[in-house]
Amino acid sequence: MFTVEVRDHIMIAHSFRGAVFGPAQALHGATFVVDAAFIAETLDDNGIVIDIGRAHDALRAVLSPLNYRNLDDIPEFKGKNTTTEFLTKHIHDSLAKAARADELGRNGRKLKAIRVSISESHVARAHYEAPLW
Amino acid sequence: MFTVEVRDHIMIAHSFRGAVFGPAQALHGATFVVDAAFIAETLDDNGIVIDIGRAHDALRAVLSPLNYRNLDDIPEFKGKNTTTEFLTKHIHDSLAKAARADELGRNGRKLKAIRVSISESHVARAHYEAPLW
Amino acid sequence: MFTVEVRDHIMIAHSFRGAVFGPAQALHGATFVVDAAFIAETLDDNGIVIDIGRAHDALRAVLSPLNYRNLDDIPEFKGKNTTTEFLTKHIHDSLAKAARADELGRNGRKLKAIRVSISESHVARAHYEAPLW
Amino acid sequence: MFTVEVRDHIMIAHSFRGAVFGPAQALHGATFVVDAAFIAETLDDNGIVIDIGRAHDALRAVLSPLNYRNLDDIPEFKGKNTTTEFLTKHIHDSLAKAARADELGRNGRKLKAIRVSISESHVARAHYEAPLW
Amino acid sequence: MFTVEVRDHIMIAHSFRGAVFGPAQALHGATFVVDAAFIAETLDDNGIVIDIGRAHDALRAVLSPLNYRNLDDIPEFKGKNTTTEFLTKHIHDSLAKAARADELGRNGRKLKAIRVSISESHVARAHYEAPLW
Amino acid sequence: MFTVEVRDHIMIAHSFRGAVFGPAQALHGATFVVDAAFIAETLDDNGIVIDIGRAHDALRAVLSPLNYRNLDDIPEFKGKNTTTEFLTKHIHDSLAKAARADELGRNGRKLKAIRVSISESHVARAHYEAPLW
Repeated sequence: MFTVEVRDHIMIAHSFRGAVFGPAQALHGATFVVDAAFIAETLDDNGIVIDIGRAHDALRAVLSPLNYRNLDDIPEFKGKNTTTEFLTKHIHDSLAKAARADELGRNGRKLKAIRVSISESHVARAHYEAPLW
Repeated sequence: MFTVEVRDHIMIAHSFRGAVFGPAQALHGATFVVDAAFIAETLDDNGIVIDIGRAHDALRAVLSPLNYRNLDDIPEFKGKNTTTEFLTKHIHDSLAKAARADELGRNGRKLKAIRVSISESHVARAHYEAPLW
Repeated sequence: MFTVEVRDHIMIAHSFRGAVFGPAQALHGATFVVDAAFIAETLDDNGIVIDIGRAHDALRAVLSPLNYRNLDDIPEFKGKNTTTEFLTKHIHDSLAKAARADELGRNGRKLKAIRVSISESHVARAHYEAPLW
Repeated sequence: MFTVEVRDHIMIAHSFRGAVFGPAQALHGATFVVDAAFIAETLDDNGIVIDIGRAHDALRAVLSPLNYRNLDDIPEFKGKNTTTEFLTKHIHDSLAKAARADELGRNGRKLKAIRVSISESHVARAHYEAPLW
Repeated sequence: MFTVEVRDHIMIAHSFRGAVFGPAQALHGATFVVDAAFIAETLDDNGIVIDIGRAHDALRAVLSPLNYRNLDDIPEFKGKNTTTEFLTKHIHDSLAKAARADELGRNGRKLKAIRVSISESHVARAHYEAPLW
Repeated sequence: MFTVEVRDHIMIAHSFRGAVFGPAQALHGATFVVDAAFIAETLDDNGIVIDIGRAHDALRAVLSPLNYRNLDDIPEFKGKNTTTEFLTKHIHDSLAKAARADELGRNGRKLKAIRVSISESHVARAHYEAPLW
């Protein structure tokens, strides 16, 4: 199985609801360094999974609406805790939608899965991976 | 599949028995930078796999008895080579026990697997992953 | 010249005033991974600059009041942009005060300088260094 | 499942054919930092997957013929784009051949899979993983 | 002294002349991960050394003419070995020229020095630092 | 000022004497990832500070007698705490001796200083820098 993985980041504010979060219930923030991995069984005729530049652009397109935002103010996230693991799935689902719509420069059917990893610090990360089809 | 992964470290001495180890048969030591990854199919009502603070505490609890020790002196490791890969499983099994005993702040049945990664240097790592149930 | 350097992090929200900041004028946030470096000409009788555990504690003490906060709400920062470089000096000055008050486990006069580095992402950092005396 | 993973690197020149590559169609180059991961269900009697020193040697043996080369000049790669993902499989296949020939210091049947990861920069990586049998 | 430091990268081919380079006399290549550090005694009224976005743009502008190139073909480098340390100074001098021409969004006189670091792999780096005035 | 910096590592056991060390008074160990930086005002006719391969060899030569050892057993370190900062100076002094003896492939007088950095974990480092002449 082949994987191509690209990195970008966002800087956001948010707060959490639930006693489990302790001091993180207050409004705080994070730099999320995001890795998006595109997984395929075969390379295309050019010898790639998808073009790395295209992968960077796709990730940037998904991250831009979140960057420099207070996630508490984004209607789509209303009533949700925008935890690191929640966001891995949000980003995954947006990239998966682009893949299924053949927007990544390759027939989406040729891509098998997408994995999103987010480092919230040098000591904590989250991942989400799911098949596309 | 969702994963939350936290990092901590220990600084230990040990020696190995077996010609394959060459100079590492002598008493030497290592900093083991340990990543513990908790894997689940779903997030809980708070939007988390398990709380990251709790995950850090669980890892710390497993590592503390090993930290600043000569592993050759630990009865549980008698007759074993405490290689990096051996230790990934030791740490995994201790975390798995805690998970199965519902000690990680979530019904252990909701966790599917645990993966432990240890970096012994900037050029060598080991991993162990196994399902919990 | 000897240096001992320790790492910790904070997760904060803040906003900036000034057209130069573009979208970062909005409320957003950051993970700041902070390295505090203590610099001395000589080691003490134990063979250390200062104890690494003590250095970690000193850094933690300075960072705790900032962690999980909206920096816009901290009276001390009123009217200031809490940029990465601004915060390197804030953290430096707090550590320097502790050093000058002999609170780091060594005669502060034996320490020559403190350098604080903050990584705000995998592609941007700031540093502040100044002599103590 | 146990994994042992070692790191080395090569510095190569190459060019790509295909409009998708844009400016990378010109002769350029890369440092490829390569991680080779050897995966097994069990440890051997020494408590290892394979010896880490041996793993380093095996990876070095595969990388040496590529290091300091213009990959466009290597007959084996004639008519191929030596993309990062293409090279993960090339390195994988060479290591797999050594594993199947019992050249890694352990019965190759005891190894289940090999994964090769290549970082081409701080923001882009590729991986290839396949079972050995 | 305050420093703001940003990271970008280029992927280039080149060859070296001189027996000291051994196999690196052949045409090969490198990914150079470049950190550009801008150093000032004071922050401006916005609380910054220079804007981090502007710093990224300035570095990108200097790196773009080199990216995806065979450096042996660039007239400016004729008769030079484009070693990692040589390139740190080349990039430094280009950034210094922009700083002295007040092109970094701040009076260049307020900047004291520029440092350029290049990682050519996970085990080798070079740096060049010089005062601006 | 130009700098070339190379990385290697050792895995050692040791213990410390002195109440300040707490649990680190027991026999334990560390992986020390060591960066050796060679600093010069000018490049030589080849466009280098010193050859990076030669720098790697020089560092390896200094580290080899320490690797896979219990530092408590090394006569030269008798009565010393082999702390991370102590070892930065030990390695520095050995490299400086080689530089002054013209053993690094360049007239030692052309080198101005050497800096040694040791990472003992992902959260603690030490450095030692001194002029050569």
